[in-house]
Amino acid sequence: MQVCFGVDVGGTTVKIGLFKEDGTLLEKWEIPTRTEHQGEMIIPDIVQALNEKLSEKGISHADVTGVGIDIPAPVDKDGVVQQTANLGWGYKNVKQEMEEASGFKVKVANDADTAAVGEMWQGAGKGVSDLIMITLGTGVGAGIIVDGHSLTGKGGAAGEIGHFCVNYQETEKCGCGNRGCLEQYASATGITRMAKLRLEKENTPSTLRQGEVDSKTVWDAVKAGDILAKEVAEDFGRYLGHALANLAVVTDPEIIVIGGGVSKAGPIILDYIEKYYKERAFFANRDVRFMLAELGNDAGIIGAARLALDE
Amino acid sequence: MQVCFGVDVGGTTVKIGLFKEDGTLLEKWEIPTRTEHQGEMIIPDIVQALNEKLSEKGISHADVTGVGIDIPAPVDKDGVVQQTANLGWGYKNVKQEMEEASGFKVKVANDADTAAVGEMWQGAGKGVSDLIMITLGTGVGAGIIVDGHSLTGKGGAAGEIGHFCVNYQETEKCGCGNRGCLEQYASATGITRMAKLRLEKENTPSTLRQGEVDSKTVWDAVKAGDILAKEVAEDFGRYLGHALANLAVVTDPEIIVIGGGVSKAGPIILDYIEKYYKERAFFANRDVRFMLAELGNDAGIIGAARLALDE
Repeated sequence: MQVCFGVDVGGTTVKIGLFKEDGTLLEKWEIPTRTEHQGEMIIPDIVQALNEKLSEKGISHADVTGVGIDIPAPVDKDGVVQQTANLGWGYKNVKQEMEEASGFKVKVANDADTAAVGEMWQGAGKGVSDLIMITLGTGVGAGIIVDGHSLTGKGGAAGEIGHFCVNYQETEKCGCGNRGCLEQYASATGITRMAKLRLEKENTPSTLRQGEVDSKTVWDAVKAGDILAKEVAEDFGRYLGHALANLAVVTDPEIIVIGGGVSKAGPIILDYIEKYYKERAFFANRDVRFMLAELGNDAGIIGAARLALDE
Repeated sequence: MQVCFGVDVGGTTVKIGLFKEDGTLLEKWEIPTRTEHQGEMIIPDIVQALNEKLSEKGISHADVTGVGIDIPAPVDKDGVVQQTANLGWGYKNVKQEMEEASGFKVKVANDADTAAVGEMWQGAGKGVSDLIMITLGTGVGAGIIVDGHSLTGKGGAAGEIGHFCVNYQETEKCGCGNRGCLEQYASATGITRMAKLRLEKENTPSTLRQGEVDSKTVWDAVKAGDILAKEVAEDFGRYLGHALANLAVVTDPEIIVIGGGVSKAGPIILDYIEKYYKERAFFANRDVRFMLAELGNDAGIIGAARLALDE
């Protein structure tokens, strides 16, 4: 039996999945991400974890088709990262180091791109070859698949739509130095920011005036009918829906999948996004279907395993 | 010697090129596009023209590697068009009809996509695998190449960036029914429209108050230092430059090539575009190079010939 590994590298833990070639998950587990000393142990730790699992299962090296790894940073076509925000790595040829340390064939990709591949293989995008997956977390990421290929771009920065400008009148700066980036409105952080601004500037009564204000409490308030929270949701939907209408004329997707922490609020977020998407969509893109991501935290290992099987 | 044909179908003429496989153009010529009767003679006319050329040159059918055809309409992955604005065709399986009529292997693609492939093969984008080519003509089209692949999308509508919304405050309608589309500002028609609006609303003296107002006279006036024309150029540059900054975060290009009738004004248009692009570009996209298209009217036949050689 041929197997492959999908490895999802995060700032705190590395998730690993052992898969059959048909996509069946045989086992998954986690190891800590040791980011100290420029993350020098991350790759050796992964290699050790893979080898131990093979011994435990009595699977030979020759039966491993390959290893896919996703990284929370832009990854170029050669599997090289230039810098990472939370792994300790600067420049690193991840593919080459991992291949030399493990002896396996290795594919490396960006985490948002990999999640999109995972959803296309086993999740919301099954059977589709043109999709956009938006991950709404601390930031906003996108994995874009066109004609079955995940877009990488010159330096691996394709799909950085968190920095799509959606408001040329914005006065507050985004972390990237620009003003008006999508991330300032559609990420968990952005939703919290918008809610706090409204709480400060408006007198509307709101349950958000008591307790913690974050993406979760905002959506809970939306569901409970809170007027101020619903205004925040309209802003969220307008910025993201309009941005997606623009994105759709670029890549002509069949479906748009929404994932990440914010999507845990459920189908209600799709209502707000679709309303504004439809308002602005080009006629050729009007029948795009919106879906919530289905694979949750496993999207990374599943997408990475799929990449491992690619030629 | 193996040869291939590149066929560029326009509303008035069909341009045809006979190429060696290494890309050398052996001969090019034109035939009229007979659009009457739902364009029923367009494909037979092309087949006849190809066969006559082969006879004339003494080249056998077996020595033709393939035929690439570009069409001024969205073309899906199967070589099918749903409708055309100026060929008379409604739904047409161009690939299948052309293969059956000619006996050759046929590739069909959209004209803006094909021009981008041409520029990547022999023009401004030689050696580059990630580029965006913008065609500024009556409308605004784009051919987007990522990781060496031209983006098609679900129904062939990828790259329809003429309908990228760049101004949510616009009150005038675009031909597509939306308001604020890039085409309303950056096409030849859009430049003319903006100039006329300013001439009407403002008292600024301008040479444009005498004679014809069109994209050419506007750019001539810009070069002569006309204040009103320069304001139009700033608007053009701002809308297009900002849109390209947003497009760049989606596809991470190495170069952006500007072609089409408006680009005949020369390098001055790049100055206006780059100024606003740089103002808004995400840091990973700041070093994108801007270039004018180099192949002019031959981009279509060259790109189509390249497609004919693809597996």
